[in-house]
Amino acid sequence: MTGDSLDPYTALYAQRTHGLTVSEIRALFAVASRPEVVSLAGGSPNVAALPLDAIADTVRDLIATEGASALQYCGGQGDVRLREHICDVMAEEGVLGSAEDVVVTVGSQQALDLVARVFIDPGDIILAEGPSYVGALGVFAAAEADVVHVPLDADGLSPDALEEAITSLAAQGRKPKFLYTVPNFHNPAGVTMSAARRPAIVAVAERHNILIVEDNPYGLLGFDQEPQPALRTYSDTHVIYLGSFSKTFAAGLRVGWVFAPPAVREKLVLLSEAEVLCPPMLTQKTVVRYLEQIAWRDQIKVFREVYRERRDAMLDALGAMMPAGTTWTHPAGGFFVWVTLPEGIDSKVMQPRAIHARVAYVPGVGFYADGQGRREMRLCYSLPPPDRIHEGVRRLAGVIEDELELRATFLSGGQRAPAHSGRIVDPGPGIG
Amino acid sequence: MTGDSLDPYTALYAQRTHGLTVSEIRALFAVASRPEVVSLAGGSPNVAALPLDAIADTVRDLIATEGASALQYCGGQGDVRLREHICDVMAEEGVLGSAEDVVVTVGSQQALDLVARVFIDPGDIILAEGPSYVGALGVFAAAEADVVHVPLDADGLSPDALEEAITSLAAQGRKPKFLYTVPNFHNPAGVTMSAARRPAIVAVAERHNILIVEDNPYGLLGFDQEPQPALRTYSDTHVIYLGSFSKTFAAGLRVGWVFAPPAVREKLVLLSEAEVLCPPMLTQKTVVRYLEQIAWRDQIKVFREVYRERRDAMLDALGAMMPAGTTWTHPAGGFFVWVTLPEGIDSKVMQPRAIHARVAYVPGVGFYADGQGRREMRLCYSLPPPDRIHEGVRRLAGVIEDELELRATFLSGGQRAPAHSGRIVDPGPGIG
Repeated sequence: MTGDSLDPYTALYAQRTHGLTVSEIRALFAVASRPEVVSLAGGSPNVAALPLDAIADTVRDLIATEGASALQYCGGQGDVRLREHICDVMAEEGVLGSAEDVVVTVGSQQALDLVARVFIDPGDIILAEGPSYVGALGVFAAAEADVVHVPLDADGLSPDALEEAITSLAAQGRKPKFLYTVPNFHNPAGVTMSAARRPAIVAVAERHNILIVEDNPYGLLGFDQEPQPALRTYSDTHVIYLGSFSKTFAAGLRVGWVFAPPAVREKLVLLSEAEVLCPPMLTQKTVVRYLEQIAWRDQIKVFREVYRERRDAMLDALGAMMPAGTTWTHPAGGFFVWVTLPEGIDSKVMQPRAIHARVAYVPGVGFYADGQGRREMRLCYSLPPPDRIHEGVRRLAGVIEDELELRATFLSGGQRAPAHSGRIVDPGPGIG
Repeated sequence: MTGDSLDPYTALYAQRTHGLTVSEIRALFAVASRPEVVSLAGGSPNVAALPLDAIADTVRDLIATEGASALQYCGGQGDVRLREHICDVMAEEGVLGSAEDVVVTVGSQQALDLVARVFIDPGDIILAEGPSYVGALGVFAAAEADVVHVPLDADGLSPDALEEAITSLAAQGRKPKFLYTVPNFHNPAGVTMSAARRPAIVAVAERHNILIVEDNPYGLLGFDQEPQPALRTYSDTHVIYLGSFSKTFAAGLRVGWVFAPPAVREKLVLLSEAEVLCPPMLTQKTVVRYLEQIAWRDQIKVFREVYRERRDAMLDALGAMMPAGTTWTHPAGGFFVWVTLPEGIDSKVMQPRAIHARVAYVPGVGFYADGQGRREMRLCYSLPPPDRIHEGVRRLAGVIEDELELRATFLSGGQRAPAHSGRIVDPGPGIG
């Protein structure tokens, strides 16, 4: 409005807007959804595996018989019957909660945003796994938090690494507000916190009086064994638990929840009222009807088989085709494989060439707040059929091999190689 | 967690939580929904007037034929077809927008929260009508803003009062980030900004380079005349426009929107992605189907008649029964009448006695950020049938008359009257 900038509102924006950037995933969205591209980027659940006709009839009946409440406002904490059912769902992973302490949210994304707004002032520190869920990093940026990553290994977050991160911050006179963790079938890393580490992680947090925000959208989607006990089962005071129906039912409903100690819960409700007044009653009651009228535990078994078949296809293809020096995680559930490329290859730089070869992935840098992850990438197997996954990995392996070859040429030539001339293509809209 | 407080997390909360309080409306919710109470408190639309069977069939068909996308994530800006339809809806009030610049939100509440988060740093000033929508005050509290009220009269916000507020702040070296206004059928004041004032209000804002946030949930629900042009029609640069389907279709869908200049719109999308990832696709596509398959303009006429009949019942009852010295506004649309009580009567103090007399209203103090409004109250006529409205006003008039009588006794007696002994009753849960 002052006319001294391309964006005339620049002088008016709040501080928090300066940390906001378009996520790697959104940037990919347009190009990765072209039909000729095998998208291993996404992260969407396979909702086509749902019994759509049965759900359609259920929702028809809901609106015809309960429309006057299903289309009306509700309380900010969410529908009480849904909250009771949520307690049954949490019990599947050993969490014993009361409907009184559950807050229904617009997906667990809103739950995380509310938790951040309850606890985070600008400059506060959050501990998060490295890599971390990209949507969580967006929340923490909006909250103007400083994210300190704690490395993951094949058994998830390590208590020693957590202890070390806390101690190292303490030496600088700083203390984190909370630890954010996805213990099961980690997005994006594909690893799961081992049973032995769970009580140990909670013990470290309690000893240092640091809250844990446990984000568990995938816990019921394990392929090989019963769910591990949630971190929440080890502490009534230090764990705030986030859940979601996005992966066990349907993402397009945006129904998630947070289960928190009463004092925190009350603040979460007040902030949720400010954010959205109340969650949509139609989607909440759709979940209630679904849980009451559709065999949802059987449907979770269907989902597990859908995802297990695709996980197998991806691991087989990676094993058969990836060039030497490439490594990857072996998920026991969920949607994601985390790939580390041979040294010297940058997944972000390689991305336009992968798109040109008609395969999409998410570069690793998007999953860190501090610029790590250049050699890494996330592959998602939830959506494409197994033969498309195989084809996608074949294309990807070819792109990596070309990169390795170019790099070998460059290193042996002892001079500046042409910058992939003839290979750099216009990546199309949305790829920077 | 430190054990030195009733709330063990006190030391961990963010600053913004200190401004959060339970709204007057939420406090009333439990008690006002008892069947024996005539609730003139609420604010809910009359969704029972919708063609529920037709909507049920439409949604059944949506899920059966488009379920794989209706139950899936979408982009953070919202479904493009819905955004196109939103442009048609805005055109009803003269706003010519492009789907590119519309962001779908979880009700217009989320739109307002996003706007606040884009522009407000702690301590920033917002101008708002006095009284103002209680949900907006909740957003501004969460944003740690200072709200400065600008008084309303029967023609809405006055350009002179706005100019004076801005000038007076400028004298203190302060400048508001934006003006928040509900020009049509104001919640809670029931007044509408006159046609003549609209361009004048925009001119004041442009002259001082202050944004206007125009919140317009009720604009199509006028009883007596065509909609007035939106403030947005007078400025492409200084007005951010918020709309909602909560009152023209159904509140339980939580579908609203914000129409903003491109640079602002992009920031709104980024923050919405952090808050909720994307709005629920099921509710968005339900609105699309509704707009395409149900005669929505005719349904708005049905709503207008429903509300007009109730507005008439309320104004008739107020005219017939309210004690002298009581005044009220005369809404030409929307849901609300704003009542000013005779001097010396406090609507908040009187509230438990009204509940005892089985009538509920919202005390005026909830609609101000600064403690004004003790003599005022909001009455809502949207939901009860006309005979119940009449009965509610009868009960309310009786309570006010009793208050006046007590006050007369107290003043003439020259001594401290017993504090309504025999009249103060336990107001039940939720009434403080």
